[in-house]
Amino acid sequence: MDQNKTSKEILLRMVKSFTENEVAPFDMEIDHTRSYVNDLLNKIKETDLLSTMLPKEYGGAGFDGSTTAEMINEIARGNASLAVTLEGHFKSIDQIVKFGNQALKDEYLPQAKSRIIAFSMTEPSGGSNPLGINSHAKHVGDKWIINGDKIMITNGGLAEIYCVLVKTAPEELSFFVVDKDMEGFEFGKQENFLGLTGVPVGEIVMNNIEVDESHLLGKVGMGKEIGDSAHNDARVLMGAVLTGIMEHELDIVTDYATHRKAIDTPIIQMQGIQRKIADIAIAKETTKLLYQKAAWLKDNRQDYEEEAAMAKAYGSRSAVKSGDDALQILGGYGYSLDYPVEHLIRDARAMELAEGTVEKMRTEIALIEAKNRA
Amino acid sequence: MDQNKTSKEILLRMVKSFTENEVAPFDMEIDHTRSYVNDLLNKIKETDLLSTMLPKEYGGAGFDGSTTAEMINEIARGNASLAVTLEGHFKSIDQIVKFGNQALKDEYLPQAKSRIIAFSMTEPSGGSNPLGINSHAKHVGDKWIINGDKIMITNGGLAEIYCVLVKTAPEELSFFVVDKDMEGFEFGKQENFLGLTGVPVGEIVMNNIEVDESHLLGKVGMGKEIGDSAHNDARVLMGAVLTGIMEHELDIVTDYATHRKAIDTPIIQMQGIQRKIADIAIAKETTKLLYQKAAWLKDNRQDYEEEAAMAKAYGSRSAVKSGDDALQILGGYGYSLDYPVEHLIRDARAMELAEGTVEKMRTEIALIEAKNRA
Amino acid sequence: MDQNKTSKEILLRMVKSFTENEVAPFDMEIDHTRSYVNDLLNKIKETDLLSTMLPKEYGGAGFDGSTTAEMINEIARGNASLAVTLEGHFKSIDQIVKFGNQALKDEYLPQAKSRIIAFSMTEPSGGSNPLGINSHAKHVGDKWIINGDKIMITNGGLAEIYCVLVKTAPEELSFFVVDKDMEGFEFGKQENFLGLTGVPVGEIVMNNIEVDESHLLGKVGMGKEIGDSAHNDARVLMGAVLTGIMEHELDIVTDYATHRKAIDTPIIQMQGIQRKIADIAIAKETTKLLYQKAAWLKDNRQDYEEEAAMAKAYGSRSAVKSGDDALQILGGYGYSLDYPVEHLIRDARAMELAEGTVEKMRTEIALIEAKNRA
Amino acid sequence: MDQNKTSKEILLRMVKSFTENEVAPFDMEIDHTRSYVNDLLNKIKETDLLSTMLPKEYGGAGFDGSTTAEMINEIARGNASLAVTLEGHFKSIDQIVKFGNQALKDEYLPQAKSRIIAFSMTEPSGGSNPLGINSHAKHVGDKWIINGDKIMITNGGLAEIYCVLVKTAPEELSFFVVDKDMEGFEFGKQENFLGLTGVPVGEIVMNNIEVDESHLLGKVGMGKEIGDSAHNDARVLMGAVLTGIMEHELDIVTDYATHRKAIDTPIIQMQGIQRKIADIAIAKETTKLLYQKAAWLKDNRQDYEEEAAMAKAYGSRSAVKSGDDALQILGGYGYSLDYPVEHLIRDARAMELAEGTVEKMRTEIALIEAKNRA
Repeated sequence: MDQNKTSKEILLRMVKSFTENEVAPFDMEIDHTRSYVNDLLNKIKETDLLSTMLPKEYGGAGFDGSTTAEMINEIARGNASLAVTLEGHFKSIDQIVKFGNQALKDEYLPQAKSRIIAFSMTEPSGGSNPLGINSHAKHVGDKWIINGDKIMITNGGLAEIYCVLVKTAPEELSFFVVDKDMEGFEFGKQENFLGLTGVPVGEIVMNNIEVDESHLLGKVGMGKEIGDSAHNDARVLMGAVLTGIMEHELDIVTDYATHRKAIDTPIIQMQGIQRKIADIAIAKETTKLLYQKAAWLKDNRQDYEEEAAMAKAYGSRSAVKSGDDALQILGGYGYSLDYPVEHLIRDARAMELAEGTVEKMRTEIALIEAKNRA
Repeated sequence: MDQNKTSKEILLRMVKSFTENEVAPFDMEIDHTRSYVNDLLNKIKETDLLSTMLPKEYGGAGFDGSTTAEMINEIARGNASLAVTLEGHFKSIDQIVKFGNQALKDEYLPQAKSRIIAFSMTEPSGGSNPLGINSHAKHVGDKWIINGDKIMITNGGLAEIYCVLVKTAPEELSFFVVDKDMEGFEFGKQENFLGLTGVPVGEIVMNNIEVDESHLLGKVGMGKEIGDSAHNDARVLMGAVLTGIMEHELDIVTDYATHRKAIDTPIIQMQGIQRKIADIAIAKETTKLLYQKAAWLKDNRQDYEEEAAMAKAYGSRSAVKSGDDALQILGGYGYSLDYPVEHLIRDARAMELAEGTVEKMRTEIALIEAKNRA
Repeated sequence: MDQNKTSKEILLRMVKSFTENEVAPFDMEIDHTRSYVNDLLNKIKETDLLSTMLPKEYGGAGFDGSTTAEMINEIARGNASLAVTLEGHFKSIDQIVKFGNQALKDEYLPQAKSRIIAFSMTEPSGGSNPLGINSHAKHVGDKWIINGDKIMITNGGLAEIYCVLVKTAPEELSFFVVDKDMEGFEFGKQENFLGLTGVPVGEIVMNNIEVDESHLLGKVGMGKEIGDSAHNDARVLMGAVLTGIMEHELDIVTDYATHRKAIDTPIIQMQGIQRKIADIAIAKETTKLLYQKAAWLKDNRQDYEEEAAMAKAYGSRSAVKSGDDALQILGGYGYSLDYPVEHLIRDARAMELAEGTVEKMRTEIALIEAKNRA
Repeated sequence: MDQNKTSKEILLRMVKSFTENEVAPFDMEIDHTRSYVNDLLNKIKETDLLSTMLPKEYGGAGFDGSTTAEMINEIARGNASLAVTLEGHFKSIDQIVKFGNQALKDEYLPQAKSRIIAFSMTEPSGGSNPLGINSHAKHVGDKWIINGDKIMITNGGLAEIYCVLVKTAPEELSFFVVDKDMEGFEFGKQENFLGLTGVPVGEIVMNNIEVDESHLLGKVGMGKEIGDSAHNDARVLMGAVLTGIMEHELDIVTDYATHRKAIDTPIIQMQGIQRKIADIAIAKETTKLLYQKAAWLKDNRQDYEEEAAMAKAYGSRSAVKSGDDALQILGGYGYSLDYPVEHLIRDARAMELAEGTVEKMRTEIALIEAKNRA
């Protein structure tokens, strides 16, 4: 345990330094140009950040969920888009680890060190009803033939491997793993979103992609279960991203309020400013505690669905509200495109819509509370 | 450690059972009659709940801050007034343990098993400026002669021992310990407050009370330091009380929403109801995590001022808001004096005003955040 | 028109003076004793306040809806319970004027000068579905025989005449007017509510009450229409009551903040206090403008359903929030039962639950907005 | 009066049609390109919209403040940037009408039909203390020599005439009118703001600009008074802009919620959606009533400072909150740069910072409330 603790500390110290030196300085550029500087992506691969949570037997560092979440938190303090790209990758690894058969794991997990994996459910038909999708896989001999169109994929276009939800029968949802190098795989259009502009969000089109039996993730009909599991894992890490965003906001406002003066007094002496800073600090701390608890529960093999939903629903609402407070503190500066506050609000808002709306989380939480007392 | 864990679990199981059987059934009666049933107070003494956190060398059970806070949390789920009475007692014990000289500890700590200790700063002159108080102690020979009038004391009238803030010089604030059995000690008027109606809040008048040197708590001039310390300790436990109040609210609303039907569907299936229940659950969980972290920091001898302030400021605001949501869910029932929801709101609101206003907490939190980054 | 304006001004000046001298001084007493001082009720009858909006042909002063609402606003600034008693009476008069046949008008409207009329829909079966009620009227010869049990009636017990919703067929809802002096009429239990404690809320039981055909309000089957109409009329006046409550809150906080000092500065100079006062002032003014617009639309025979719903939904939420701000400004004083702030919160909250919940209003408003654009 | 009413109705009908046909279709383009299509600006001049509120004796249409505000409201429903450009122009005209000497009026007011006038107070030295500015005017013979640097000017770069605040003595603030065609006048840098991207916000630099005595606006030392007056006039119109933004939001969400289905039901049938739509509708209506009342008071020569401050402070907060609700209703669509909701939020937020922060408004409102009751 001591040794685990030490290696965790070493990792987080390294990540902190990497963030300060290699990520934070490019925060504004990533937002404005809507893309990672290629150097940055290469450095991430070089530093093995893509495989920190990959189990050791597949070549990863094997860190637990808590460490992974804190690492994401640290990076998000420098740039939220990069943290979300990692979140999407880790969430996908998690599902292959949990549900993949041995052949699938042996084939793809070692690749996760250098190739990004994405997870994809949404289709143009849209909507809250997963059975409304049109993508499908047909069993032909010992192969599956996959056709369909998936959109709004986090890391879509950047990722090279995709876990895709398809129908294997009219009322049966299943997941398959496909590779961008397979025949019949095409990239589609990229979304033009308001926030997290560094995260590519895109479409893939599958035309008669043929895969082996081993590319079925879990069993046929496990689509909903795997989707729910991915949601839960994503939400823990999103809580970490949102915490990082609020820490970034706090860094900015405390610095500004300490140095900016009204007449001769630093504005941090004003009740109205203190109120806002304290509210941001509380929002940050409570979100942090929520994701840390969810990660701890996950690492200890207890239910973490409710805490994960809380971290995501409460955290995203709080980060938007905190960004709004930060903007008010900075006044005209907060409002300028030359300062980072406004893009932090856009980033936080993006997370409010991803991986289930606040409304859906609330439904889940309320029903869990009632069930726990029944 | 295993043993500690076991004894902690035994304590909390006992407290839970005590709360369900002896406290919760009297919740409405305590609120309406504005007093504890005498039997209940005797049972609390009998079960040694007054000394759970008292160090073992003085006859207590020596539980740490985390366990103490969880115990308070558990009791508050049954009745918040009783939990606050214990909070006031424990906070006072804490200051004597921290600042008392050996003679004072030897004299009063063993009594804490059966006699309630209170902590008192406020005076009729009121106000935010502690130097504005009029109570004072004069050194005469090897005695101190204390005069003054203290009001709004939690457990005032019920407590038998009082830590009182007085001036020992025009600009010097100090604490002394006085006993209700001392000559010159008188009880004054009781407050008539809206919430936490089971907690006596009252006045004491000190007319030439003569005490030994040993009754000085800490050193002369340590008034502010001891006061701040007491605030911090109180706020951790208040976070626990507020968590208990919100758990009580959740118990009520999940039960109601599961059984109450609109036409044929339990109202818990309605989006508007789910939203409120989820918000209460999130508010409860985040407050719980805050007080638990503050208690953990305290037990590990790290700074806990900020987390304690957050637990109290955020927790009290959240519990009022949650009570409001609960009342809306129950509609006319929530509004009736025959149901407990409305008094939970009053109880939560009382905690918003005690031990420093939300505004003061926010000032503290904001300045700590800035200092940590300076 | 000039003359109308003059008489309106005279009325409002009289009401203002009556409120200041005869109502406001008893505000706390009305709340604490849960009843009107008998003298006050007699004075109201003497000053003809019960018939200000009664058409002149029935002996009233014939003031329009705008004047009536402003009068209610003025009285509520002194005591909200009294204003609500009048609101319930006026709403009932309005329905008899709108839907009553001539014989019914001739019989009951002249009595409205001295006898309070109430309006009753709710039954113990509860609920949002009006067709779930059990009260019914059977046509026997040229009479109707009415049986049933109505609860939660505003002014129930105080009022002498009741408009009651009953079934005239399994799917048919109709209104009848009954009198407390009729055979078979009995008063039931009184509710024990948290706020508006001066307003009696009670039950009536009808055992084979026999009424003439003329006592049918409107036509058979018009139950929903008349109920909706009464809701609309009530909500306009509730907006006025809520405005009065917020004016009362403003009176208290501006006075307190001007005289109370922190060290040497009146606290109204503090940003945190200003913020709260401004928020209350804005909430008051916007609620006032909403009810005034609704009343103006009503007087000009235009649709006022949406504005009335806004005045009630927004106004009640705002008055509760404003009371909360006021309580925070006053600190311990706000929290004491010896000061009026805490009962203003209870009064406002009562209005949040009456005449349709905030949630129902919102549904109505949203559907009207969509319809207006369709 | 009938005739006035008719011409008002004709104007507003014309403006509505102009907005629908010439403004609304370019809303997204104006936002994305950060500039008006030149055709649009020319059309505005052609249709005489720049002079609707200019007094008739100077060639304008002489409409009152209420009509002007409703016209601005109507245009803002199509595009907020254009409405704000007009607001800045009208506010400036208002000050010249109120404070200008006859020669100044004769010279500049007739030009207001085709040349935009701007109003400028802020300088790089920034800040809340107007006496901290560096621009100054020196009396030399019968001329004034003006030097200085003004930034963050609404319509800066687009406007051709500028009312500028300068020091005429160390503690004396005064306003002058300068023309872009004067020698020594230069345009500086343009701001790059997040919202209202169609409104140019820029800098002017004045190097020894020489003006006649007649170019002094009001008298020397009237700087604060004129500045306050301009704030008040601007805020009334900003309330109108914000109302238009919220009407635009309502147009979008009611259309979307009526046509978008979850499974088979339009989402407008869902409680969570209705709640948000109703909240936007209430926010819109209350803001509209506030600016209308402020304008009515202004037209009737009564104090309108408080209502104007309310319209701006409450309206801007409400429009941001409403945009947030609208975005949630539209989900991913709301979040896309291809849909207008996200820019409406940015536009509303811009207005929160202009013409005094929400915090300053609240201070003003609170002190007026206290004064009115003193």
